[in-house]
Amino acid sequence: MIVPIHLENQTSIKYDVVIDSLPHLTFNRKVAIVTNSTISALHLDTLVSKIDALELHVVTIPDGEEYKSLETVESILDELFSHKLDRKSLLIAFGGGVIGDMTGFTASLYQRGIGFVQIPTTLLSQVDASVGGKTGVNNKYGKNLIGAFYQPEAVYIDTYFLKTLPQREFSAGIAEIVKMAVMFDREYFHFLEEVDFSKKEDLERVIERSVSLKAEVVNLDEKEAGIRAVLNYGHTFGHVIENETNYSKYLHGEAVSIGMVMVNRLSVELGLMSDSEASLVSKLLTKHNLPIEYDIADVDSFYDKFFLDKKSSNNKIKFILSKGLGSHTMIDDIDENLLKKVLSTFKKA
Amino acid sequence: MIVPIHLENQTSIKYDVVIDSLPHLTFNRKVAIVTNSTISALHLDTLVSKIDALELHVVTIPDGEEYKSLETVESILDELFSHKLDRKSLLIAFGGGVIGDMTGFTASLYQRGIGFVQIPTTLLSQVDASVGGKTGVNNKYGKNLIGAFYQPEAVYIDTYFLKTLPQREFSAGIAEIVKMAVMFDREYFHFLEEVDFSKKEDLERVIERSVSLKAEVVNLDEKEAGIRAVLNYGHTFGHVIENETNYSKYLHGEAVSIGMVMVNRLSVELGLMSDSEASLVSKLLTKHNLPIEYDIADVDSFYDKFFLDKKSSNNKIKFILSKGLGSHTMIDDIDENLLKKVLSTFKKA
Repeated sequence: MIVPIHLENQTSIKYDVVIDSLPHLTFNRKVAIVTNSTISALHLDTLVSKIDALELHVVTIPDGEEYKSLETVESILDELFSHKLDRKSLLIAFGGGVIGDMTGFTASLYQRGIGFVQIPTTLLSQVDASVGGKTGVNNKYGKNLIGAFYQPEAVYIDTYFLKTLPQREFSAGIAEIVKMAVMFDREYFHFLEEVDFSKKEDLERVIERSVSLKAEVVNLDEKEAGIRAVLNYGHTFGHVIENETNYSKYLHGEAVSIGMVMVNRLSVELGLMSDSEASLVSKLLTKHNLPIEYDIADVDSFYDKFFLDKKSSNNKIKFILSKGLGSHTMIDDIDENLLKKVLSTFKKA
Repeated sequence: MIVPIHLENQTSIKYDVVIDSLPHLTFNRKVAIVTNSTISALHLDTLVSKIDALELHVVTIPDGEEYKSLETVESILDELFSHKLDRKSLLIAFGGGVIGDMTGFTASLYQRGIGFVQIPTTLLSQVDASVGGKTGVNNKYGKNLIGAFYQPEAVYIDTYFLKTLPQREFSAGIAEIVKMAVMFDREYFHFLEEVDFSKKEDLERVIERSVSLKAEVVNLDEKEAGIRAVLNYGHTFGHVIENETNYSKYLHGEAVSIGMVMVNRLSVELGLMSDSEASLVSKLLTKHNLPIEYDIADVDSFYDKFFLDKKSSNNKIKFILSKGLGSHTMIDDIDENLLKKVLSTFKKA
């Protein structure tokens, strides 16, 4: 006997990303803010002053990627249970990508799922991590290996919180913005060449465009089966760089910056991109103090590390390549010798 | 600025529940069987002999509800990572409800979700736990408080595995079967009065009907907002009984059996159900060695414990009541005095 199960009542997901000064928020629910010690010291009072809730709790965790673990999530869950949050309660993720990923993950687990709202406080999380529904934690085997796809109820992006962001982290966020432009939107790329990031209006326009582009991609491919992989432009090389430098020398966005320059050189070799366009990308990255050079000590070893990535399930590596500004392609059978030739151009003397 | 996010590409979920002798299964993927020490000793060889896979791993955990924890899930995840399972790999849950819930939960977490298949080996998990997508673990605050909604790729139900199931656990499974009949299907109830559970054909028919009824309910209400609550018939009282007896005196199905008898008495008091129909339910439960009596030591204390349940988010308790065999209703404003009057009829001398 066979009983066919067909669940057809899955509702589509809708929410808004609001890019503006943070409005006053009123919730007829219990609310818990999840934040880290750094953001808490700088901005918690501001946030609390803007929230009305049935009950308002604050869970503060230490700042840093090393706390992005199942252990921390369990401690957050414990605190939420001790406050007797119920199925209608809400979490607010208040911080950068680590806080957003862990809070969303915690929300997905609490009584099999409660609501959460993102209030990202770094440029990277404002343009990137707050849209897409990827949540999770690291373990000893790698980054983001344990998690869930889980969407927020809303995202509030207020550029005010970026005023306290270190300049280097601000630049790292710009790397992901450049990534979106190179992959999807030539006009946006040229706008980025002219824009003044210190002007609130310009900054909001940049964020709006990046979020919109990402939302389009995620909508087409929520679970990362196809086009969403394009968001990994620069990341295949970047991950190896992060790995080789023990995740300590470069911020993620900095490694992606170098990764984009590397993969653009591959694009040029393949005749997909002109040398002058690749130079425009490098120039824009340099303008924002992003690194574009890296000394590959051992080409063979660098090459081998491509295969560590969790996305390569069948020993083929998918390279996301620019086909010129605003256009992309994916190739998974790039010749080993060509790749090593490109890598060797990054080997210093 | 507001960017509206609308994810409309969520695909509906389809899978089969196959009720038959376990077929030979061939997977062009890495597979890990998750099972417990008891089932492993009895049936692992049988299962392994029926599976072809790229790689086949076995993760064995201790048997018992006390191991249904985030800690155990983390240890399973670690073992899967050490075997380098990838995004295309598959878990097979081989055991009762605890194994099913934890394996499904682990599958939902591994690299944000890999496939899993259920091969339930208890009557309860065959009729109940293997359909519905509820996965999770317990913590010190209660049962199933941490988890995810996550559906299997397929469920294989082979009554052969029930031959080694202790009679008492078999009966506990019948309680959930009776529950489905009383709530949804009068004809099925009368069929249950006549059926011979020792005959494979009868047993398969019973399982098929229970699974079909549950699938209909879950399809209408995957995330338990409405009608799915009907599956909690007998559970509101049953949970208090389990709590009062420290989850040690009664199996879950036994507590539900008593709970159904209790809530039927409430139905009779409210004029929803005839006394004779309530007696038919009690008689069927007794026929299968299920308990129908319980000595409530302290009526007020029993009453107060209704409010511990995680489903009562606003201090109202939803009672799922029979309106006669095959029909149900939900009432959330039952008079405290009436409830206590019903409870006091279960107080011995």
